Amino acid sequence: MDIITSKDNPRIRECIRLSTQKKARNNSGMFVLEGVKLLEEAVLSRIDIESVYITRECLESGKSELAVLEQLDRKVIEVAEAAAARLFQAKTPQGVCAVCHIPQREPDFGKKGRYLALWDVQNPGNVGTMIRTADALGFDGVILSEGCCDLYNLKTLRAAMGSIFRMPLLVTDMESFVRQNDNRLTFFASVVDADAPGITATEFPEGSVMMIGNEGNGLSDEQVSVCGNRVTIPMTGRAESFNAAMAATILMWEMSRKKNMERK
Amino acid sequence: MDIITSKDNPRIRECIRLSTQKKARNNSGMFVLEGVKLLEEAVLSRIDIESVYITRECLESGKSELAVLEQLDRKVIEVAEAAAARLFQAKTPQGVCAVCHIPQREPDFGKKGRYLALWDVQNPGNVGTMIRTADALGFDGVILSEGCCDLYNLKTLRAAMGSIFRMPLLVTDMESFVRQNDNRLTFFASVVDADAPGITATEFPEGSVMMIGNEGNGLSDEQVSVCGNRVTIPMTGRAESFNAAMAATILMWEMSRKKNMERK
Repeated sequence: MDIITSKDNPRIRECIRLSTQKKARNNSGMFVLEGVKLLEEAVLSRIDIESVYITRECLESGKSELAVLEQLDRKVIEVAEAAAARLFQAKTPQGVCAVCHIPQREPDFGKKGRYLALWDVQNPGNVGTMIRTADALGFDGVILSEGCCDLYNLKTLRAAMGSIFRMPLLVTDMESFVRQNDNRLTFFASVVDADAPGITATEFPEGSVMMIGNEGNGLSDEQVSVCGNRVTIPMTGRAESFNAAMAATILMWEMSRKKNMERK
Repeated sequence: MDIITSKDNPRIRECIRLSTQKKARNNSGMFVLEGVKLLEEAVLSRIDIESVYITRECLESGKSELAVLEQLDRKVIEVAEAAAARLFQAKTPQGVCAVCHIPQREPDFGKKGRYLALWDVQNPGNVGTMIRTADALGFDGVILSEGCCDLYNLKTLRAAMGSIFRMPLLVTDMESFVRQNDNRLTFFASVVDADAPGITATEFPEGSVMMIGNEGNGLSDEQVSVCGNRVTIPMTGRAESFNAAMAATILMWEMSRKKNMERK
């Protein structure tokens, strides 16, 4: 196994750029993941891995997830302490990261499934959690506006727990996307408005898209109007509103529950 | 208005202790909140506020939430820069905090409502988010085991967004609580197990308690057995599991949805 000792090694510097700079990721089509669990998820999801950097300590930790390293063979490179100290971005690094190719796996909209759409959702934890929930509920794809936070920053990856590797994803100009697809997909704008149709009473046709807006402002009137349909969570309690990820969870759950009831 | 300039002022030191030490909170029955929005929520919820520390910059920021300061009158104390730098714990402090009395507002279990119970949930963000969701869905109380993270640490308060001030809460020895109440309350242990009864098919009698376990391990077999009933979220998708807060959201939503359907 090769070993890198210098913190100024060009491979280390390139890896840090990919970890921390969206521009570097966009230019190269590569991203970096950190942590043993995410590495395992990437291998299981057949993500194309370019190289793995790992500390001796992590290698010898005997974590079961590290069994995937055997499949990666010569791509695994040991990093000595000085290089490692600079390489990892997590607060408490696990001692392993991997440079990977960004997967190109767009949703199949002809399938007429259930889709989640995020319009300028900016918190990486929210975006990651929403993709994880969409994955858990068997959604067929997630569409993100160009104003959303980057999918491949370390916080989004961590919150999504591998779902970004499995879920078909499309980053696009949302307004054009909706306008171009309003014949074959039905868009539901989630709003906080007691007068909007309630989620439990709403029927979702095949090819429905649940649109979630920015955490602070929700969807603008214009964005709602582009979507055409509105839907809200009836609030029986006292909190001013759910947080964005909680609301998205309930909305997606209701879409899934109805789909499952139809099947029975 | 009084002004504190020294970072070694005993009131500042006491406030920091209450912000950062659970033991100090338990001994005094006091806690500290940070931020203008939370301060407003506390006043609206009639939390007994002992004192407010605020910077000149925050005072002059003109934020609408600060109108509540008028009601607090002589309790408001200005803190100069040196004191402020040490006082606030948030990464990007808003320049205001308040020392408050911990409210004593236990759930009314005779009401036979819907309750959430957290058994050793340890992440403050999760605990806060779950209480916020319970509040949004009109739950009647939240029961926390002594092994949960502290309700009044700054992260829990921030994630709950004021719901901790409104929601009736009980921190107790969970096992004794369940055993003593199994005649008047019905406990549902949430589990990840495809063979457990699904949430959509489950009937919730009046006085139902949804029990959520620790984020990493879930509820132990023993904890499940103490609860008596099991319930699970049918997983149609691919993610290994929801995160704890997402799962709790779906489970509480289903309890609420059925309650609302009965009313109609």
